[in-house]
Amino acid sequence: MKVNGKHYRTIWLKEDDDKIISIIDQRHLPHQFIIEDLHSVNEVVCAIKDMHVRGAGLIGATAGYGMYLAAIEAAKKNSFNEYLHESACILKSSRPTAVNLEWAVNRQLAVIAKGNSINEKIKIAKETAITIANEDAAYCKQIGLYGVRIIEQITKKKKGEAVNILTHCNAGWLAFVDHGSATAPIYEAFERGINIHVWVDETRPRNQGASLTAWELINHGVPHTVITDNAGGHLMQHGFVDMVITGADRVTRAGDAANKIGTYLKALAACDNGIPFYVALPSSTFDWNIQ
Amino acid sequence: MKVNGKHYRTIWLKEDDDKIISIIDQRHLPHQFIIEDLHSVNEVVCAIKDMHVRGAGLIGATAGYGMYLAAIEAAKKNSFNEYLHESACILKSSRPTAVNLEWAVNRQLAVIAKGNSINEKIKIAKETAITIANEDAAYCKQIGLYGVRIIEQITKKKKGEAVNILTHCNAGWLAFVDHGSATAPIYEAFERGINIHVWVDETRPRNQGASLTAWELINHGVPHTVITDNAGGHLMQHGFVDMVITGADRVTRAGDAANKIGTYLKALAACDNGIPFYVALPSSTFDWNIQ
Repeated sequence: MKVNGKHYRTIWLKEDDDKIISIIDQRHLPHQFIIEDLHSVNEVVCAIKDMHVRGAGLIGATAGYGMYLAAIEAAKKNSFNEYLHESACILKSSRPTAVNLEWAVNRQLAVIAKGNSINEKIKIAKETAITIANEDAAYCKQIGLYGVRIIEQITKKKKGEAVNILTHCNAGWLAFVDHGSATAPIYEAFERGINIHVWVDETRPRNQGASLTAWELINHGVPHTVITDNAGGHLMQHGFVDMVITGADRVTRAGDAANKIGTYLKALAACDNGIPFYVALPSSTFDWNIQ
Repeated sequence: MKVNGKHYRTIWLKEDDDKIISIIDQRHLPHQFIIEDLHSVNEVVCAIKDMHVRGAGLIGATAGYGMYLAAIEAAKKNSFNEYLHESACILKSSRPTAVNLEWAVNRQLAVIAKGNSINEKIKIAKETAITIANEDAAYCKQIGLYGVRIIEQITKKKKGEAVNILTHCNAGWLAFVDHGSATAPIYEAFERGINIHVWVDETRPRNQGASLTAWELINHGVPHTVITDNAGGHLMQHGFVDMVITGADRVTRAGDAANKIGTYLKALAACDNGIPFYVALPSSTFDWNIQ
């Protein structure tokens, strides 16, 4: 999405050196927009561990690129395979809670093993890293295309008046490679010229709403207001919320969604006021092992 | 209640000079415990306007003492009555939302008018100021005596395990003259040696829970934990809350309670989890003009 009028993703190969990974160092948002270059597996591990990057989708993509750097480094070692698996292990342990992290590392290990030479293995690792990132962006785009239909229905009923959408935490493009999950329908609606306004929950204790979601929306030009987590229920009672969209950390087989603390309170208020509540997610967020 | 082991009220006549009103300047809490002396009506107005004191009960009591200082000052003027009524007017306009403020000023005007001499009028004003403060403390104490019965019932069921009470904002002794409304049953239970633990909602955006309620409980020695406003629902879902007690800004004839933003979300979660939710208030909080 846009920052200062220019399109960005949260992670990419550096334009003039495709052995370097560029990321937005999110620790400095919303105060500073700092792009960081990652030159080694160790730097990738540090970026994941110390939350330069966060969000399930982005952590997975970062691990994918990390395995590409691992393959480059492994080529200079005595045992390519030994170094690659050691790097895989270190990457997996950099953030124990993120399912996508392990998934991306294992996917890379499986495809790299199929390369017939070290050069081919590096080429495969690079292509797969790019594919993982592109897929993440494409899935989010698709969430936007599905979700915008709901917003279009509401805007018809409101006859041009702004559609007020409440969101909690940051399930925005900063948590993925592009578009985001909860924000994808919002950005799609905005691109289509639909009159929308977003209520952004501050999201204590870490303020991801105030620091990240609001920063995203400001930079993309989407009308919004940051509110305290306490305010959403009151706004719903007084007709100021047309729909709620959040992301999810994990969704069970039965469809129960786990998300950032406080999401439950907003779901109760939406239910009490007859306001539709949507959870936007890529299929990778389903955990089929939990009933 | 206690601060550093010593009993305090939020407002009192200075021990060695009963023409001076002492208050706790609450703007500095929880970082500094500063006692401020108020020497004139103007200083009382400033203390109310700039939130050195806050909370319906305490604002009423402060206005009562303010009228006592007004009577002292009026005695030095050409027209006692004119100055007294001017002061009354200024005091009433110092915080337009507080019902108790107008009530206390009008009560003082009515009784002062009955004095036969200026000295008698000053004496009446002083006694009435003290009475208003004492009544406020007594009403809160009574709320504690009623409320503690509920806690005693719960503690029996829990067989000595801590009774977990969640509260929102500050309906504590800092908002009244002593004891508080929501906190009165908590302090009473604590005095009776009942094993209790209080979940203190941070209460954004002004953090009255984290800054004032937690400060009260720390100083009185009551076990408690400050939580984000988002956390209460999750705690209720997992059986960590036995009851909720809040105060109220205003209660309608029908019994609907208006209180600090976010109270509604906690009420919904309590309802969803079958947890009893109590609103503690003195009868002055009822607004019989609203259905």
